[in-house]
Amino acid sequence: MPLIPIGVSARHIHLSKEDLFTLFGEGYELTNFKDLSQPGQYAAQETVAIVGPRGQFEKVRILGPIRPQTQIEVSRTDAFSLGIHPPVRESGQIADTPGLRVIGPQGEVNLENGVIVAARHIHFHTSDAAKWGIQDKQLLRVQLRGERPLIFEDVIARVSDQFALDLHIDTDEGNAAGVKTGDQAELLL
Amino acid sequence: MPLIPIGVSARHIHLSKEDLFTLFGEGYELTNFKDLSQPGQYAAQETVAIVGPRGQFEKVRILGPIRPQTQIEVSRTDAFSLGIHPPVRESGQIADTPGLRVIGPQGEVNLENGVIVAARHIHFHTSDAAKWGIQDKQLLRVQLRGERPLIFEDVIARVSDQFALDLHIDTDEGNAAGVKTGDQAELLL
Repeated sequence: MPLIPIGVSARHIHLSKEDLFTLFGEGYELTNFKDLSQPGQYAAQETVAIVGPRGQFEKVRILGPIRPQTQIEVSRTDAFSLGIHPPVRESGQIADTPGLRVIGPQGEVNLENGVIVAARHIHFHTSDAAKWGIQDKQLLRVQLRGERPLIFEDVIARVSDQFALDLHIDTDEGNAAGVKTGDQAELLL
Repeated sequence: MPLIPIGVSARHIHLSKEDLFTLFGEGYELTNFKDLSQPGQYAAQETVAIVGPRGQFEKVRILGPIRPQTQIEVSRTDAFSLGIHPPVRESGQIADTPGLRVIGPQGEVNLENGVIVAARHIHFHTSDAAKWGIQDKQLLRVQLRGERPLIFEDVIARVSDQFALDLHIDTDEGNAAGVKTGDQAELLL
């Protein structure tokens, strides 16, 4: 069975250019702190605070580059602490999601929406998908043999020639499985 | 396939009589706030604070009745916040586990050990176990068809005529599956 590297995503934020400028100042550019597994994506040096009706988190990592719309990805556990109930969604699907207050060094933004719990998914390069007969949007099963073995079902396939092979799960899922970034999952075909 | 009710356990503490008296005063008795699924077990009205090297939680629920030894059960997410790394263990197996500071209204206790991440398990009444051919300590698979479908493997069977049928998972596991207490899992035999 194909082995897929695991990436466990902690809470993070993607910013629109407009929100970046509001939070950090007009014309601001993010600093690459560390490249991520997907080509061109990086963790920025910069962080923001996010504030919900019940709780808040300081130093939430910004992921770059900028995107058309601001999006915050939290775990369900984070969401309880913040006092919001975002839906489980694919990245980019932010209609009818809750917002949060975002605070940067130069200003703040009151998001009307944009907070999701990210649906687990696998990034496939087109060549990997072709090799294993995987279609974009296909629902897959992956087996994780960490400290707490489990099988994730309904894992969404995302196929692009811009992607590198990676299973993306959040911290609740990583902790439930007892795995960390760099561990491997087995794709059940 | 047999359906098993799910119980999602938030962080909680079981106290020895000695630690109960130190925290709440000599001769103190816990007040039953709510009966739990297992016969004789209850959530107490009383709470304590638990303090780790990195963070702390206020109002951690005490579960009664008192036990031979104090034990704290947290999720892996909680453990990161507290700044400790407890192992995944069955209840009662607290050798070589980390401790925490526990603060009550009348005193505090510095636990040398006792903190675990509870291994997921199913309580079976002896009659249910006999009906389905389940042995105590057997490792089982359960399928959860919540918002985020998955199959938990290596779920430990615990069989006793003092038990009521229940799958116990922690908040990381409940959140990873998108289920809550009262939902049902399917035992894969």
